[in-house]
Amino acid sequence: MEKTLIFGHKNPDTDSICSAIAYADLKNKLNVNAEAARLGVVSKETQFALDYFGMEAPQQIEKVDEQVKEVILVDHNEFQQTVDNIKDVRIAEVIDHHRISNFETKEPLYFRAEPVGCTATILNKMYKENGVPVSKEIAGLLLSAIISDSLLLKSPTCTKEDVDAAYELAEIAGVNLETYGLEMLQAGADLSDKTVTELLTMDAKEFSMGDAKVEIAQVNAVDTSKIYAFQDDINPEIAQIIKDKDLDLFLFVVTDILNNDSEVLALGEGKEKVESAFGVELDHNNRALLKGVVSRKKQIVTALTEEFTK
Amino acid sequence: MEKTLIFGHKNPDTDSICSAIAYADLKNKLNVNAEAARLGVVSKETQFALDYFGMEAPQQIEKVDEQVKEVILVDHNEFQQTVDNIKDVRIAEVIDHHRISNFETKEPLYFRAEPVGCTATILNKMYKENGVPVSKEIAGLLLSAIISDSLLLKSPTCTKEDVDAAYELAEIAGVNLETYGLEMLQAGADLSDKTVTELLTMDAKEFSMGDAKVEIAQVNAVDTSKIYAFQDDINPEIAQIIKDKDLDLFLFVVTDILNNDSEVLALGEGKEKVESAFGVELDHNNRALLKGVVSRKKQIVTALTEEFTK
Repeated sequence: MEKTLIFGHKNPDTDSICSAIAYADLKNKLNVNAEAARLGVVSKETQFALDYFGMEAPQQIEKVDEQVKEVILVDHNEFQQTVDNIKDVRIAEVIDHHRISNFETKEPLYFRAEPVGCTATILNKMYKENGVPVSKEIAGLLLSAIISDSLLLKSPTCTKEDVDAAYELAEIAGVNLETYGLEMLQAGADLSDKTVTELLTMDAKEFSMGDAKVEIAQVNAVDTSKIYAFQDDINPEIAQIIKDKDLDLFLFVVTDILNNDSEVLALGEGKEKVESAFGVELDHNNRALLKGVVSRKKQIVTALTEEFTK
Repeated sequence: MEKTLIFGHKNPDTDSICSAIAYADLKNKLNVNAEAARLGVVSKETQFALDYFGMEAPQQIEKVDEQVKEVILVDHNEFQQTVDNIKDVRIAEVIDHHRISNFETKEPLYFRAEPVGCTATILNKMYKENGVPVSKEIAGLLLSAIISDSLLLKSPTCTKEDVDAAYELAEIAGVNLETYGLEMLQAGADLSDKTVTELLTMDAKEFSMGDAKVEIAQVNAVDTSKIYAFQDDINPEIAQIIKDKDLDLFLFVVTDILNNDSEVLALGEGKEKVESAFGVELDHNNRALLKGVVSRKKQIVTALTEEFTK
């Protein structure tokens, strides 16, 4: 039987996994033969949410099989973030909250992007528009996605729509938003079993800023000093990455999920740009505390891009 | 005062003009300071609709002024079809029913594309979603856009949603869909004042099909023989276009709006592809009748692309 496959981006976060599960659930209830999938391993944070609400992780896929009729992308649209054989399949829909870039189709499709903090917020609306009630389990997953993307509603990417959806979903899921949210974020911030290489690559993105190449890696932590206890191991690894990729700056961002600050480590020729962008001084370890900074997209990339393109 | 500018594609058709006017009206009723604009001259068909419902054509613009805060694109998304300085302005929204291609933004935005036959069909839904009643005049314009894009609901691009919206809007506009629709299409099909050059360029699009370059020009007519009475003037103009653009095929499509057929004229090295694609023989004038073919996008481009990429 022909089926529709629904998945989020590579290196999936909680929104990518939970929105895929939820949209497949909604489609099934609307009598569409849809299945969720994922393009990478499940993080500890996501696993906590799945376990808490008694749900299974979707199947992991490397590419889309030939018997798949069409695919739906959630939480992403850029082709470099999706399955490698995306050009061979029909994209029926996209539900997303990111900028649009490196995306194209041959045929008209259903494309819904909204400037909110989380794909799950749009999906919560779509359940209502279709008159389908959200089950307790799905409400829990959608809530988890919003908490993850908004760092418990603290990120500047979080809109009123996200906040309203989160409280509404917490009610259906039968959890206290603050208590559950912190537990989930803490589960994700358990970095005790990670190698230094994993810390520097698990959520790293490269950006072009003017003529400069900048890589920014981010991890969430409960205690930033525990990460920087390993700085002697971190420094040479970053130096190697800078050399291999010919970077002007590597910024390692350790975000304190309890205080909503970030302690950053800046290495590379362009490290003084971090000082001017945020009005701070790097200490003798090349580190600085950025008060109130939690969003790579909205706070770090914008401020640094401005410095590098001045 | 900061304002939002709303416009459709260059070389605007009735959907591009009427959807811009309607969406500006909806935005104004939602207390957003929005204004419609257009990126080219108003066709006879569109002018008929505007006059019939006592509406003014929106302002014509060449580029977006600096005091404009943001823009909304309706009925298109590809950058080559929009204002030349699109990269200097913030795109707040896109409402469209075409494929997505050559489009990108730096920031998340509201992007709504649906695989229906006309942008006006989506706008009719948006009035309802926002609880704003559609006025008689706006209903008339939205209806005109649907009739135009669907060739009076006959095109294979027309969906059930378009048909339902058209009947609903005709009711509000107080017109008989068939009678009004035919009158409007006939007004647009009055080609008596057009030069041969205008006929070949007023709605021409170039396509890459495999290694071949193909240009397809389309006009609507009530009597196709009236157009082909000028074939002796048409042939050398097409030959010159083929030479100038190094085309493999130029297909001139004259669509009979009463019988919903098209009489085509094929010139260029690749003209036999037209014969194999549609199972017809070109006569001694290089013309053939394509029964039931009215849609360039859904019927002509797809069939020819298949032939050229075999």
